[in-house]
Amino acid sequence: MAFELVIKNANVATASDRFCCDIGVSAGKVVAMASSLPAGEKTIDAKGLLTLPGGIDSHVHLEQPGPPHIVMADGFESGTLAAAFGGNTTVMPFCLQRKGHTLRQALSDYHGAAEGNCHVDVSFHLIVSDPTSAVLGQELPALVEAGYTSLKVFMTYDDLVLTDRQMMEVMAAAKETGALVMIHAEGYDTIRFLVDRLERAEKTRPFYHGPSRPVAVEREATHRAISLAEITEVPIMIVHVSNREAMEEIARAQDRGLKIFGETCPQYLVLTEADMDREQMEGAKYVCSPPPRTSEHQQACWEGLTRGVFQVFSSDHCPYRFAEDGKLNSRGKESFRWIPNGIPGIETRLPILFSEGVKKGRIDVNRFVALTSTNHAKTYGLYPRKGTIAIGSDADIVLWDPEIRKTIRQSDLHHNCDYTPYEGLQVTGWPVTTIVRGKVIIEDGVLVDAGKNGQYLERDRSALLSSADLMR
Amino acid sequence: MAFELVIKNANVATASDRFCCDIGVSAGKVVAMASSLPAGEKTIDAKGLLTLPGGIDSHVHLEQPGPPHIVMADGFESGTLAAAFGGNTTVMPFCLQRKGHTLRQALSDYHGAAEGNCHVDVSFHLIVSDPTSAVLGQELPALVEAGYTSLKVFMTYDDLVLTDRQMMEVMAAAKETGALVMIHAEGYDTIRFLVDRLERAEKTRPFYHGPSRPVAVEREATHRAISLAEITEVPIMIVHVSNREAMEEIARAQDRGLKIFGETCPQYLVLTEADMDREQMEGAKYVCSPPPRTSEHQQACWEGLTRGVFQVFSSDHCPYRFAEDGKLNSRGKESFRWIPNGIPGIETRLPILFSEGVKKGRIDVNRFVALTSTNHAKTYGLYPRKGTIAIGSDADIVLWDPEIRKTIRQSDLHHNCDYTPYEGLQVTGWPVTTIVRGKVIIEDGVLVDAGKNGQYLERDRSALLSSADLMR
Amino acid sequence: MAFELVIKNANVATASDRFCCDIGVSAGKVVAMASSLPAGEKTIDAKGLLTLPGGIDSHVHLEQPGPPHIVMADGFESGTLAAAFGGNTTVMPFCLQRKGHTLRQALSDYHGAAEGNCHVDVSFHLIVSDPTSAVLGQELPALVEAGYTSLKVFMTYDDLVLTDRQMMEVMAAAKETGALVMIHAEGYDTIRFLVDRLERAEKTRPFYHGPSRPVAVEREATHRAISLAEITEVPIMIVHVSNREAMEEIARAQDRGLKIFGETCPQYLVLTEADMDREQMEGAKYVCSPPPRTSEHQQACWEGLTRGVFQVFSSDHCPYRFAEDGKLNSRGKESFRWIPNGIPGIETRLPILFSEGVKKGRIDVNRFVALTSTNHAKTYGLYPRKGTIAIGSDADIVLWDPEIRKTIRQSDLHHNCDYTPYEGLQVTGWPVTTIVRGKVIIEDGVLVDAGKNGQYLERDRSALLSSADLMR
Amino acid sequence: MAFELVIKNANVATASDRFCCDIGVSAGKVVAMASSLPAGEKTIDAKGLLTLPGGIDSHVHLEQPGPPHIVMADGFESGTLAAAFGGNTTVMPFCLQRKGHTLRQALSDYHGAAEGNCHVDVSFHLIVSDPTSAVLGQELPALVEAGYTSLKVFMTYDDLVLTDRQMMEVMAAAKETGALVMIHAEGYDTIRFLVDRLERAEKTRPFYHGPSRPVAVEREATHRAISLAEITEVPIMIVHVSNREAMEEIARAQDRGLKIFGETCPQYLVLTEADMDREQMEGAKYVCSPPPRTSEHQQACWEGLTRGVFQVFSSDHCPYRFAEDGKLNSRGKESFRWIPNGIPGIETRLPILFSEGVKKGRIDVNRFVALTSTNHAKTYGLYPRKGTIAIGSDADIVLWDPEIRKTIRQSDLHHNCDYTPYEGLQVTGWPVTTIVRGKVIIEDGVLVDAGKNGQYLERDRSALLSSADLMR
Repeated sequence: MAFELVIKNANVATASDRFCCDIGVSAGKVVAMASSLPAGEKTIDAKGLLTLPGGIDSHVHLEQPGPPHIVMADGFESGTLAAAFGGNTTVMPFCLQRKGHTLRQALSDYHGAAEGNCHVDVSFHLIVSDPTSAVLGQELPALVEAGYTSLKVFMTYDDLVLTDRQMMEVMAAAKETGALVMIHAEGYDTIRFLVDRLERAEKTRPFYHGPSRPVAVEREATHRAISLAEITEVPIMIVHVSNREAMEEIARAQDRGLKIFGETCPQYLVLTEADMDREQMEGAKYVCSPPPRTSEHQQACWEGLTRGVFQVFSSDHCPYRFAEDGKLNSRGKESFRWIPNGIPGIETRLPILFSEGVKKGRIDVNRFVALTSTNHAKTYGLYPRKGTIAIGSDADIVLWDPEIRKTIRQSDLHHNCDYTPYEGLQVTGWPVTTIVRGKVIIEDGVLVDAGKNGQYLERDRSALLSSADLMR
Repeated sequence: MAFELVIKNANVATASDRFCCDIGVSAGKVVAMASSLPAGEKTIDAKGLLTLPGGIDSHVHLEQPGPPHIVMADGFESGTLAAAFGGNTTVMPFCLQRKGHTLRQALSDYHGAAEGNCHVDVSFHLIVSDPTSAVLGQELPALVEAGYTSLKVFMTYDDLVLTDRQMMEVMAAAKETGALVMIHAEGYDTIRFLVDRLERAEKTRPFYHGPSRPVAVEREATHRAISLAEITEVPIMIVHVSNREAMEEIARAQDRGLKIFGETCPQYLVLTEADMDREQMEGAKYVCSPPPRTSEHQQACWEGLTRGVFQVFSSDHCPYRFAEDGKLNSRGKESFRWIPNGIPGIETRLPILFSEGVKKGRIDVNRFVALTSTNHAKTYGLYPRKGTIAIGSDADIVLWDPEIRKTIRQSDLHHNCDYTPYEGLQVTGWPVTTIVRGKVIIEDGVLVDAGKNGQYLERDRSALLSSADLMR
Repeated sequence: MAFELVIKNANVATASDRFCCDIGVSAGKVVAMASSLPAGEKTIDAKGLLTLPGGIDSHVHLEQPGPPHIVMADGFESGTLAAAFGGNTTVMPFCLQRKGHTLRQALSDYHGAAEGNCHVDVSFHLIVSDPTSAVLGQELPALVEAGYTSLKVFMTYDDLVLTDRQMMEVMAAAKETGALVMIHAEGYDTIRFLVDRLERAEKTRPFYHGPSRPVAVEREATHRAISLAEITEVPIMIVHVSNREAMEEIARAQDRGLKIFGETCPQYLVLTEADMDREQMEGAKYVCSPPPRTSEHQQACWEGLTRGVFQVFSSDHCPYRFAEDGKLNSRGKESFRWIPNGIPGIETRLPILFSEGVKKGRIDVNRFVALTSTNHAKTYGLYPRKGTIAIGSDADIVLWDPEIRKTIRQSDLHHNCDYTPYEGLQVTGWPVTTIVRGKVIIEDGVLVDAGKNGQYLERDRSALLSSADLMR
Repeated sequence: MAFELVIKNANVATASDRFCCDIGVSAGKVVAMASSLPAGEKTIDAKGLLTLPGGIDSHVHLEQPGPPHIVMADGFESGTLAAAFGGNTTVMPFCLQRKGHTLRQALSDYHGAAEGNCHVDVSFHLIVSDPTSAVLGQELPALVEAGYTSLKVFMTYDDLVLTDRQMMEVMAAAKETGALVMIHAEGYDTIRFLVDRLERAEKTRPFYHGPSRPVAVEREATHRAISLAEITEVPIMIVHVSNREAMEEIARAQDRGLKIFGETCPQYLVLTEADMDREQMEGAKYVCSPPPRTSEHQQACWEGLTRGVFQVFSSDHCPYRFAEDGKLNSRGKESFRWIPNGIPGIETRLPILFSEGVKKGRIDVNRFVALTSTNHAKTYGLYPRKGTIAIGSDADIVLWDPEIRKTIRQSDLHHNCDYTPYEGLQVTGWPVTTIVRGKVIIEDGVLVDAGKNGQYLERDRSALLSSADLMR
């Protein structure tokens, strides 16, 4: 057998195993793993490095329209480039339905934007903001059949919020068609009430973004989402969980046998509410929803990752600039209410979890792989094509230097945002080489293939729908 | 590369992955996995079968002395033969220190008995019944260095029970040397009190074995064991958990960050207290400790397996015959107190979990592999030599027919016990071919290599001691 | 001192004490308790009876408009007469604001209806269905000052449901003015979704009232109500809790220090969902909201009473007839959706709790007094005028025959409804004499004073607002 | 009626009620309460004061032998004098059986010492240290019949510790005879293990008393005691609970319906482990068992009091001097192991709870009365003779000045100990007048009756044995 790529001396970790071997790639797929393989067309020696399945970031926002006059910093090109540099080989942006529009209209726009512009593979989740009977009864079933097997709904935000009744209609439709429902669980009414009260009290600095959506707001919405899912008997994924109380709601639901899944993100592990209290408007750099909490809640998010309450760890990359077209828009200076919610993080997700998790002894490297790649693939219908290093899988591989010490600097990053909320964070470990379907995109930290050959991925239905257990 | 064995069309499952490949074995190890490999000296086509890591049964009693005049039915030869037929490639019997004897004396006896008599690989846990300062200060450290890296202590049984103080001394010594402590958690005093009370009330039928050690007895001992481990700051494995309350004690300990691990067994999934109530002395066939409980507690044991509270699923094979030298000894007929505690199960463990778990949709095949093989290897220092199918690992492989329907019958089993408590249980799925270090021992259900080439395995320290997470 | 009434040999129970004495009443108040008192203008010998504070039923609906063309069976006259026969000396009906109307309009109507028609004392809770800024900012504060110190909001029912935002506005106003908020916690959207689905499936018999508002519906709304109260920092009373899950939500909130209070009712102790499954339309007799559940949930309601999770036990008397103008209205026969929700119970509340609770050993007589009288008085600002037998309190006293055995029969009751859901229930213990402010209304089971001298009670603010503990 | 004592303008609080009245006393009992009474032989105007049931301290050690050469500072005379000054009218010391002696021998000694020496009423609990079959089978039943209806067992201390088997034998005997079992729940083996380890590490200062019996030690013993009680089906009282984990064990047991009761003490509300870390040997002044914990555990003990997990609040007065015959004995200076465990507190219990509890808004005055008097009387068979102000009860009354501000000073106290651990603590509220069975012992802070007329009280069986609920 002739290999287009051979990785020698690979120190492989999967979600459960560790082994050393040579890896042979052919037609973009792993076709051989052996104690020794001959050289390929291209051969890389991975000695001293970790060889891991490429990261899958299943929660990113790219080229998505934000509030009026606010521009998202990253489109598909810069977003996927940053992703690749951050050790990812697949990203899953959202395709947002606008009220009054169809899902297909949205898809047409996003496919148009993505086509030919992606450095890594991509696949879209649908955001359903207008669940008419036509959308749920006709469009959605056809789109699920066509491989759009996940959708997201929001319990807050003016343009996106659904009523509980609509949530249940979406869930029922998802159940019918086999789509996985992702939920942004914060309560619209509770937030509006608190925002108004804070503004009346002239508490408008970025810091007050936190008090406007306290832990109880998120816990309530989480409990409500779980209840709606319980009533409609459908599995759901609660995304970006930020605190102990929401985490415990999910854990309690799991303990009584419900298929409720959870995700957390880097901002809930290393940022706190104090960051939003930085002087001047600096705090705006950390404004995202849910907001970062306290160190006790960080601890709870770690527990969620280690106890198996959370299955996936994503970036929620939502890159608003710290500039006039972003965080510092004119109204945002008047009140936190108008600061766009979202921070960048697509390139830093994996190094942060590796450094804070693996290197600090909180999780082992198998759990790291599960949380950043394998479980994403299983959850969203990409497995076994993606999410592991195994015979027959796409050769989506990232080589890690586990010992390199770096300080995160905006100047070193590749997104198109103008800052990183992790500026100055010291980490140990960084991905050095990224291989997508056998093609080396980045080698030793250098972009060596700018061909933007990322493919769009049609997906199977989520393994969670049929799977027997919670992937703990 | 020339292979001594090639498995074609292997449908492999590991603890996290599923893939199809050919597997090449050389010098007893897996050296190649590829989409296609040439034939080997011996070639097996595994099409239509599952190819799994060989089972590891980390909780079996073989050739262990029981009560006076009571003989354990299986020695190493019959025990390992039955294990092999049941899909196991490694078993871990206990080596029991008698009071007043050294650990080395015990090891000498057990090695003598095992030497040359094993069909699969074996490794011993130590049972410490006499934790003198010499034993803990000198023998144990040397033995741990020599690869005896786990030990078991008992909180009940006249000849084995340790005081809480002794338990802590053992735990402290284990921590010092890096041994993993396994605990039989039932309370001596509570059981004796209840046994006496039942006997005074002339409640002596086998059924009363259950009421003599109710759930509260096991829960109390479990809580106590956890507390002693918490105080001495040492990880422990609570073996053979039978009920919800003990399971929840372990879960609560895990939730507050302690390294407390758990095991359950087939008898707690498919037997109940009603079995001990069968007419005449038939109930004696089900007398083991802890006793089988109710269907609600069975459900809790399943939850322990699916929620990740339990890491390992073992047989606790403890084969006392239903005969005069076993269950039906003269005193046993007078009172359940004298019925030896223990039932056979080494050959039926995997089929029961596969059928009740995988086929009934409670767990997936990855979790099956984790619970029956990978986690045992990691827990007891055999990984990555054992417990997975990966390059460099021992070629310990079992081929499963996942669709075959069988009724468990004593007449079909290979242990030396005279009954099975699972008589008549219908299962789907059975291991058909067992390969130990590349040697086919059983092929298509027929013993093809009676060479008894099982090796004794020196072990590393448990991965749980250093590992960051709970292997959930 | 001359007494208008003396009760000799009173075997008194308060919420914490038991003692025997003579009780002297003057000007409607208890003015003396002593080991012996001289005779009064009227003297009653209470030997062999229990002498208890008169029952306070803080959750009744009288003369309240229901759905169109549906008439509530009891107005103030029949309702308070039945209350008196059932051992109550104070009842607290709701005064319902219609959308578009003011609170004062509603009060004017209800006062008009009550005036001169009440056999026992009465005081109104407000139902706020249209929380405009005028209502919350002007009317409510004035009304609270005037003694209307409690209000109720609904999370369901077409004409009553508030949004979460409105709920919070009401809570914030209540906090400002010192009103206690009572909450009907069932979710509007979840119920509508399920009702529609059941109707589409042609599941329209009375039985399906239960499945249209399952436990999860009530639990979700309960959690939501607690969260809104937590965010607005206001104590609330969750009324008519029917099941374990809602009870546990309240208990969890209490355990983390929140002032969340709870109420349950007889229907959740002695009726079950099976009652709604009775043949023909008989099931309609048991349709109330939340619906009766299973025996396991009955057990949970008992736990709520004995663990102190619930502070008050009320009837939720809501008397719709089993007739064409009630349960059997023409649309009700087509679908459970149109069966008016509510059942009578004002006369049977105390005997049911006494018999099932005190006589069956679940609670003692002190707890009975607390749950049926004292805690109501403290909760709703009537204490110490009402709710106990103590010097200075109103002489609201009921004499109980604790040993009499009765079978509940509609023909023996005094409400104006045409059935009782407790028909045939056997109870031990019944109130025989009812004294309101020193006036004997009912003596030995006979109405002796038909003067309808019940007074309207202005109330203080709830003791719960300032009280340090939960009255457990 | 002529009264020997009349209290005018009494502002009375019972465990559930508040009312104002005059109180008439005759033959030592409350015989009249009325809005106005004529003067008695003696008349006190209680205007501006609170009139409460006299405190009952159900956990005190008087004239009890300690370790060799260590003398307990208070005998019955000084102990009951201090009790009276602290607002108590009944104290319940322990009568300790020495190993090898009978219970009657112990009683003979204690009665001899108490006779004629008590300023307030007393009643003994038995301490069972040698539960022979003669003791349990013959002595105990006779003594329970004679009014010794409670007994205490220890799970630690060399001379007192019982095995689990002995604990169950005692519990079974208690059940048979109707005695209430009190339990000191700390684990002997765990403590010995830790003491030895600390001493080997030369950690011998008083501070290390805390680390020698950490929270896990107490939690384990508490869980064990509960389990033994569950198995023998007998109610128990866990005394002097010091921390959250033990409190939660009790709460969990109560939540599953067991009759497990709890007590806490002032030292767990206002002292912390830091006190034992004071310079030189000062820390010895705070050495008691269980030891004071952290402020978080103080908070948990408050929760236990407010959530109703604890029924009684006692002093655990155990007065070892800070002198050569007490804390500073020669061996005590060498190691905390030899510092006698126990601190004085009989005079300060009520003021501390009143000030920290009632005045700081954590509990109301009704709960204060329940926790310090009524629940003690009900728990230990003294109710209704003691524990309330009601017709027919003993006129054990204490008048409180609720506004007086005092700093606790050893120089102001009346015990015979040479220090108070609460030196310098500022409190608001202090008992000024103490009345025992109608006799004013202390009036306006002055001893006015030194007659030592305290009586010994034979007791009924505990109301908890038959009572339906947990007195929450």
